Amino acid sequence: MNKSFVYHPIGVIRSPYKVPKGTPIQSSASKGAKGVIEIFPEYQDGLKDLDGFSHIILVYHFHLAGKSNLRIKPFLDENFHGLFATRAPARPNPIGLSIVRLLHIEGNRLVIRDVDMIEGTPLLDIKPYVPEFDHREADKTGWLASNIHKLPGKKDDGHFSG
Amino acid sequence: MNKSFVYHPIGVIRSPYKVPKGTPIQSSASKGAKGVIEIFPEYQDGLKDLDGFSHIILVYHFHLAGKSNLRIKPFLDENFHGLFATRAPARPNPIGLSIVRLLHIEGNRLVIRDVDMIEGTPLLDIKPYVPEFDHREADKTGWLASNIHKLPGKKDDGHFSG
Repeated sequence: MNKSFVYHPIGVIRSPYKVPKGTPIQSSASKGAKGVIEIFPEYQDGLKDLDGFSHIILVYHFHLAGKSNLRIKPFLDENFHGLFATRAPARPNPIGLSIVRLLHIEGNRLVIRDVDMIEGTPLLDIKPYVPEFDHREADKTGWLASNIHKLPGKKDDGHFSG
Repeated sequence: MNKSFVYHPIGVIRSPYKVPKGTPIQSSASKGAKGVIEIFPEYQDGLKDLDGFSHIILVYHFHLAGKSNLRIKPFLDENFHGLFATRAPARPNPIGLSIVRLLHIEGNRLVIRDVDMIEGTPLLDIKPYVPEFDHREADKTGWLASNIHKLPGKKDDGHFSG
């Protein structure tokens, strides 16, 4: 299958984090960092009623990710794992997901909390976060189970950047 | 910002659902339907250690979605809402997300449960589902709060297909 898909940004993410190094590695460990999403005016109509949701899922392009490798050392471990068993940003299709708190919407600007994206990140989609759709009782978390204690305060060390 | 991003499938999803109409609208309402993901051989190395996770996040292209509109009637309501306040498949960038149960991996084939994708869906990425990353206590779910009771058994009626 040699198909390809071309996507265009619907907006851009403004973040206090200007470079990969030092950026929180997950929004759940971001400790409330604020950011702003600027939706391009031609998409603003699609935001109606989004302000009723406390949390939103951002789908975006990891614009500073380097070349992907299929075996990598993730941020939270010293051992190599298959790329798809990790959340590393350098992926064959460098698509990022973050669940953030939506504080309020002013026109085409969304003020958000728990930012783990880098300034200028191109936004591809927004979806409402819905526990009845998105929550699972996961009983196995593989190599992460013995490493998750390192998450609080863990920062990007820059090793996946281009 | 006139950038665009070109993504290539890493595999294809095999599903018992052959057309949009009648397909479950969320994996959380799929009641255990089984499917198979065929990862293209050149990406198989990236699957190492993924079998340690009970749930995985699939990122895929809604290949049968029609033209997107910014105000739509979602599957679960009779009223119009902004597209980004819904999970409808016809989106400016038709990227789908599903959390499914990973049963086992045989070489480049992942056997999964809770399928809500359609046969032949091009897969863009796999990420491990990690409660510490992905679970939020959402206190507001907007227009969905009064409609979520319709989720069990709700099927795609085909109105977002191309």
